[in-house]
Parts: sequence; C-alpha cells; structure tokens
Amino acid sequence: MLQNATVKSVVKRLPIYLDYLLDVMKNDSNVKYISSKKISDDLSLGEVQVRKDLSAICGNGKPKLGYNIEKLTNTIEQYLGCNHIKKAVLIGVGKLGSAIIAFDEFKKYGIEIIAGFDIKESGNVTDIPVHLFNKQNLKKIFDQNEVNIGIICVPKQAAQDVCNTLVELGVDIIWNFAPMILKVPKNVLVQNENLAYSLSIVSSVINNNSKN
Amino acid sequence: MLQNATVKSVVKRLPIYLDYLLDVMKNDSNVKYISSKKISDDLSLGEVQVRKDLSAICGNGKPKLGYNIEKLTNTIEQYLGCNHIKKAVLIGVGKLGSAIIAFDEFKKYGIEIIAGFDIKESGNVTDIPVHLFNKQNLKKIFDQNEVNIGIICVPKQAAQDVCNTLVELGVDIIWNFAPMILKVPKNVLVQNENLAYSLSIVSSVINNNSKN
Repeated sequence: MLQNATVKSVVKRLPIYLDYLLDVMKNDSNVKYISSKKISDDLSLGEVQVRKDLSAICGNGKPKLGYNIEKLTNTIEQYLGCNHIKKAVLIGVGKLGSAIIAFDEFKKYGIEIIAGFDIKESGNVTDIPVHLFNKQNLKKIFDQNEVNIGIICVPKQAAQDVCNTLVELGVDIIWNFAPMILKVPKNVLVQNENLAYSLSIVSSVINNNSKN
Repeated sequence: MLQNATVKSVVKRLPIYLDYLLDVMKNDSNVKYISSKKISDDLSLGEVQVRKDLSAICGNGKPKLGYNIEKLTNTIEQYLGCNHIKKAVLIGVGKLGSAIIAFDEFKKYGIEIIAGFDIKESGNVTDIPVHLFNKQNLKKIFDQNEVNIGIICVPKQAAQDVCNTLVELGVDIIWNFAPMILKVPKNVLVQNENLAYSLSIVSSVINNNSKN
C-alpha cells in the first residue's frame, strides 16, 4: 500500500498509465510485456518517475522484459477502484451537466452516473434519466441505490443548498463545478472543478513570465 | 513579483479570492477594508495561509483595518492578467465544447473565446460564431486576431493533429480536454483537463482509505 504522502502524486498519473496500457493492448493483443522505458517515451514522462510510480504500486518488472502488461493493468484498475462501481447523481442538467452525463469515460474508472436532476423538466440525456429536482425525488433514488458521489453543476447561488441536501442524504464525495467554496462536514470530500480558475492560472503564468 | 517556487501554490488561490472580493463589493458597496481573518472565515481557508498569500502579492494590510478591498481586488486582477484580454479558439463544438463556449466566467479572467470550430456545421453557440474546421478557416481567424489559447475538445483520435495545427498557427497555451497526453514544443504550455481522471483520483482515495 502506498504511503499517504506519495499517494497524491502517484495516483494522479495512474489514470494516464491505465489509458495508455489499455490502448497498447487494444492495438496489439500479442504484447505480453512492456518496459518503463517504452511507457516513458510514449507518454513523454521522465523514465525515473515512471519506474518509481510503477514500482510503488506493482513492484519491479522482470529484468530485460519489463512489466507483464495484463498484471500491471489489473493492479492499476484495482488501485483506482475501477471494478468497484461507485454511483453518482448529477444536479443541474444544463449545458455542462449534459456534457458530463454524456461523457462515456467515467465507466472505465468504475463511476456510474445513475440519474440527473434539474429544476426544469428537460428530458433524458442519453439513456440516463433526468428527474425534477426536489428532496423527495432525490431521496427515492438514494433509498434504492447506494450513492457515493454528488456532482454539482448548478449556478453558484444554489450550490450550497444542493450540497447540504446531498450531504444529508449521505454522499461521501462532492464533485463541485460551481465557482465557489462549499462548506461540508469533515467526512465529506470536495473536489472542486472550476474551469475558469484552471485556465486563468495558466494564463497568469504566461502573463507574468512575459513581463519578466 | 512572486518567486517561481511559490507562484503555483499562491496563484491557484487567487481566483478564489478574486471571486470572493467581487462578491463582497457587489453585496455592499460601502465596504472599504477587509481583514484576512474575515476572508479566511468566509472561505474556510486557514488564516495563516490567507495572510501569507495576500502579503506575497499585496504587502501587509493596515493594522486593525485590513486590506483596502478595491486595491486588493485590482492587484489580484492585474496579477491574473484579467485586464489583458487573451483570445482563444475552441476546436470541437460537441456537448462539452458548447458548454465551455457558453460558460460566461472566462471573461472575468480576461479570456475571450472568439470562435469555435467543428467538422460538422453546427450553428453558433450563444453569439460566438462556429466555423467549419479546416486549416484555411482557422488561419483566417489567426490572421485577423492575436490568438493565445487553443482549447481542444475533440475526441482523442483527432487531438494530436488539431494540436499540431494550433501550435503551427502560433498558440502559446493548449487547454486540452481530450483524455490523452499531447506532444508539443517546449515553448507551448499544455493544461490538461481530464474530467474522468480528476474524479477517478478522488474516488480511488476513498476506495483505498476505506480498505485501510
């Protein structure tokens, strides 16, 4: 098991390795072994880093051969909890909410959006049902399913109320797209996803570098 | 000017402070000063951290009064380059691309999406024109505007080609939503925004914590 201090930095690269390994196997089902050198070349990552990451979760590869690709893939999938389905609901099915519901990459990581909720009746997105947002309708879904994740795509004025309702119903993780800081109890994890922030940070670095 | 080592950690909180300060001024135009204590309470951030962040970009506040809110806001806006408009084009106007084009928070940070491009003629999103994606059409926009940012929302099979074209036309920043690692020259900055990765990382932490 990884030490807490190294968890974050290694874990954030695991989905990159996983995507890559799945691609390699899809393109050539005869590949049995893969070296950290090849991985680092193909992904433009430092070889030392790749070695360190992989040995942290999967020990060392075989000398001259590298890692058994299937075993490595399985270990990463297990580590990321890909085979342990985590159910999510999404609140606020506007443009961004619809895009997230329709995004089919989540399943790869064991995340399943089972329902959307909106204050307007707006029809389903793909085959995922969208319900009218109210506590009664939400509770029905939570009673029938173990829901771990609440995805908040509502305007920031409504976000804290929606968050409180989701926490009350028992979610462990809030994935927040509203541009604000939510207040939650200590046992709830909030992952903030502010698209404008993210871009403004990059562009500020450019802005200030060009001045130096 | 900030030291490079501290830049990243401070800068990533600047948009949060900015949003907050703009809100405070909007709600009460009589507020002249604000203390780091109040900021840290309202944002649920540690007071020491807030003090450190703000003093790094704006010196110390007045004793007992705190910071002049207007001056603090201006300094942060200046640092983030909010008043220096950076133009962006977005390639791939599907669900996610449309959501990003329609997202009106970018302007606050000086980022303006001037055009979208798609391989299908799909009509405009809001008042931003969407053109048919080909090099000729792209070049026309780049000839008429100084474009700094290219936003890639195409499927991963097409992403590297689109990226190459954007780099050739002279963008400084690629904002990449395709779930893959792009290869770019050293002078180009790539900000990856993989939504599935982001969520899988959070859920893997939950996954592994619950096993310990």
